[in-house]
Amino acid sequence: MESLKEKILTEGKVLSDSVIKVDAFLNHQVDPVFMQSLGAEFGSRFTDYGITKIMTLESSGISPAVMTGLSLGVPVVFARKRKSLTLNEHLYSTEVYSYTKQEANDISVSKDYIDRDDVVLIIDDILANGEAALGMVDIVEQAGAVLEGIGIVIEKGFQEGGERLRERGIRVESLATIESLTNGHVNFKQGRLI
Amino acid sequence: MESLKEKILTEGKVLSDSVIKVDAFLNHQVDPVFMQSLGAEFGSRFTDYGITKIMTLESSGISPAVMTGLSLGVPVVFARKRKSLTLNEHLYSTEVYSYTKQEANDISVSKDYIDRDDVVLIIDDILANGEAALGMVDIVEQAGAVLEGIGIVIEKGFQEGGERLRERGIRVESLATIESLTNGHVNFKQGRLI
Repeated sequence: MESLKEKILTEGKVLSDSVIKVDAFLNHQVDPVFMQSLGAEFGSRFTDYGITKIMTLESSGISPAVMTGLSLGVPVVFARKRKSLTLNEHLYSTEVYSYTKQEANDISVSKDYIDRDDVVLIIDDILANGEAALGMVDIVEQAGAVLEGIGIVIEKGFQEGGERLRERGIRVESLATIESLTNGHVNFKQGRLI
Repeated sequence: MESLKEKILTEGKVLSDSVIKVDAFLNHQVDPVFMQSLGAEFGSRFTDYGITKIMTLESSGISPAVMTGLSLGVPVVFARKRKSLTLNEHLYSTEVYSYTKQEANDISVSKDYIDRDDVVLIIDDILANGEAALGMVDIVEQAGAVLEGIGIVIEKGFQEGGERLRERGIRVESLATIESLTNGHVNFKQGRLI
């Protein structure tokens, strides 16, 4: 998605050969009009697949997920990173390790909001090692729901997450895939031109 | 806002005289079309005030904040609950105590995304004791920005947050205010009819 690549080039900050900071438009500040255009793009790629529910992980996934839900007209459930006192034990839960934060968190979704009749689209902001996405896939499987695919705003193509998901036969649609960040320069994977 | 009151009555679960669970449409699952209507309502109440930025707190504030930003056409910054490894020390920060989670968190916003030229609207999902909102007010003040007001989806009118904010002269607009939850019954404050 060209407008996203442009944002990454102009507003992203390459911090090392493996880290790019996209706080300006994705992880800390968001432009809702731009975010709506990302949601519409996910919507167009996953329309006509009978999606009944979008799942994401708090917090940075919520904005693109809600805008995708707006586009497809379906509810969004966000997996929570730990149990809150007002959530009971009626949960699907799995452990996810965060390399960024260097800690493991349980992520969980109430059994009230996903079940075997659901056709789920997972949306997340970043795909790196795939831990968060695989955790959500696990929750979809626990629920007995159908996983239709995963929509990612930015895939770090030089990390293994995309491969781990695709080798399981999961359809992964990334709006921008970064091939490398060598010498402070962002190289995108050339793919579907839109 | 009548449609919100209806949602609270039909989908909220009163757990005690002081706790109502609104996970079904606000804290865990959201209906993006409904959320957009809440954002439009906040937008209509705060249009023509020169708002340049919306601030919220991760995670449950993000959906209504982003939809309000879509309505007003301004960026949304979400205060983070702890420092991430990719955020540096270039932060406004303050401590917020969560009675629900019984713990104190630092909340912080990068100095890149709010400054003295900003006119800020704070949006949050729930107003109870006011700790989170007062933390965000503190950050706006640290930045030297103008605080135009606070928009709250559900105010728990029997807790002190609303009074703490209003006695400081802050304009607080709540889309629904719950006066009591006695005996499992939700009583709303009668106010502005819309």
